[in-house]
Amino acid sequence: MKRLTETLSFGGRQSVYSHKSTVNNCEMIFSVFIPPNTKKPPVLWYLSGLTCSHLNVMEKGEYRKKAAELGIVIICPDTSPRGEHVPDEKDNWQFGSGAGFYLDATQEPYNLNYNMYSYITKELPDLIQNNFDFDMTRQGIFGHSMGGHGALVMALRNPKIYKSCSAFAPIVEPSTASWSHDAFQKYIGPNKEDWKIYDSVALIRDGFYFPEILIDQGEADSFLNEGLRPWLLEEACKQSGVDLKLRMQPGYDHSYFFISTFMTDHLIWHKERI
Amino acid sequence: MKRLTETLSFGGRQSVYSHKSTVNNCEMIFSVFIPPNTKKPPVLWYLSGLTCSHLNVMEKGEYRKKAAELGIVIICPDTSPRGEHVPDEKDNWQFGSGAGFYLDATQEPYNLNYNMYSYITKELPDLIQNNFDFDMTRQGIFGHSMGGHGALVMALRNPKIYKSCSAFAPIVEPSTASWSHDAFQKYIGPNKEDWKIYDSVALIRDGFYFPEILIDQGEADSFLNEGLRPWLLEEACKQSGVDLKLRMQPGYDHSYFFISTFMTDHLIWHKERI
Repeated sequence: MKRLTETLSFGGRQSVYSHKSTVNNCEMIFSVFIPPNTKKPPVLWYLSGLTCSHLNVMEKGEYRKKAAELGIVIICPDTSPRGEHVPDEKDNWQFGSGAGFYLDATQEPYNLNYNMYSYITKELPDLIQNNFDFDMTRQGIFGHSMGGHGALVMALRNPKIYKSCSAFAPIVEPSTASWSHDAFQKYIGPNKEDWKIYDSVALIRDGFYFPEILIDQGEADSFLNEGLRPWLLEEACKQSGVDLKLRMQPGYDHSYFFISTFMTDHLIWHKERI
Repeated sequence: MKRLTETLSFGGRQSVYSHKSTVNNCEMIFSVFIPPNTKKPPVLWYLSGLTCSHLNVMEKGEYRKKAAELGIVIICPDTSPRGEHVPDEKDNWQFGSGAGFYLDATQEPYNLNYNMYSYITKELPDLIQNNFDFDMTRQGIFGHSMGGHGALVMALRNPKIYKSCSAFAPIVEPSTASWSHDAFQKYIGPNKEDWKIYDSVALIRDGFYFPEILIDQGEADSFLNEGLRPWLLEEACKQSGVDLKLRMQPGYDHSYFFISTFMTDHLIWHKERI
């Protein structure tokens, strides 16, 4: 693990690291914010959306002030493997680099690199545990859009690892959403039964459970009706007893101007649960 | 004036506009944040540093939460004229595009476009007054680095326009600083007497006065000793009775991680004075 930058901000340390990922078979970058004066702080994972890297939320998410106050570590991984040897479709922003969809690919040639599910739930937490003095018994997860999908799937499948879950404008049913259907096909193959373990609505219908979820969704989000459709998750949660707090926010779009507005609420939500 | 974008954020409206600037003889872009539920809000101008445009602080400055609470408009102009017809030195980040130094050039060919002093103090405020319902009798000004220099010079020369002034890591004596000396030469010519009206330390020595100034300066700022040197301003203020509150911040650098940390303090400083 190699530290690329470290900057003081809001009394805490905002750092960026790179390391060799075994599961993704490439060098990966992530950012870590460590709050000041906090012994064994809990860890909150933020998963970013399509086209993003660790940088977008680090620059535009406005999480440091509150995370410093609450004493929470914020870790922001990249959204896919990257590198010249990593198969990609350069002109397709919904597949390949920046579009790992937080799943483990089963189809060649993508299965050699695109294993973001294992990376986020196992490899990166192990690396963090071995290199930092954080309280890994207290982890929460949240994310935006594709990363909101990632956070929901991680939490539903690993309720013992993550004590809290929230999302900004998540893709709740990626197996049928316009911008993820094609990627699922390429990463996991044509059998749609195999897609269900990466689809929060399908997981809940299949009995996976997480006690409470907070979601903020802008009503002026241009992806709302085709890509996001939080009402599908709302219906599944209602059927299965998952306590979903879905807040529709009039006038807000899909950008970091929206995310930063509600960031503080989400950090408090997680702090109360991790 | 043409609106390029408008986004809801923290209950307010973050917009970007372009317009034809007469004094700069080119199209100029600026951003405006309008707080919610505020009748005739006061206006705070933020001037950005070298290489920046209106975008950097809009994305990374973290000003919207507090500006919305306090009911302050934040306007962020660009740092220079731009365009294919505007003379520039493409490989020089300390001159030309992104480096207007908030002065009115007197030397050909720069005097046709590089008139940022008149743009910030006259042309842009007139445009704002004609297009928005803000309280232009209540204006403050702040900025970062080259923009901190700009804010100091604007306030010292126009204490009737600006009721408050602050800066993050300003260039306080640009006529002798390593990264501005060359630009002053090219924009204003060899006579150093002509440079003084764009140099806050020289202005104060020459009797220009502003009652109170707040400055935050990171001690780990790599530009501190050659480019910034706030002690020069401190000495001049002491001699002339300007009440300078200079806060040296241990461990902080020159980046927006530093600026965002102290942004709230500056917004409160201005709100109490405008």
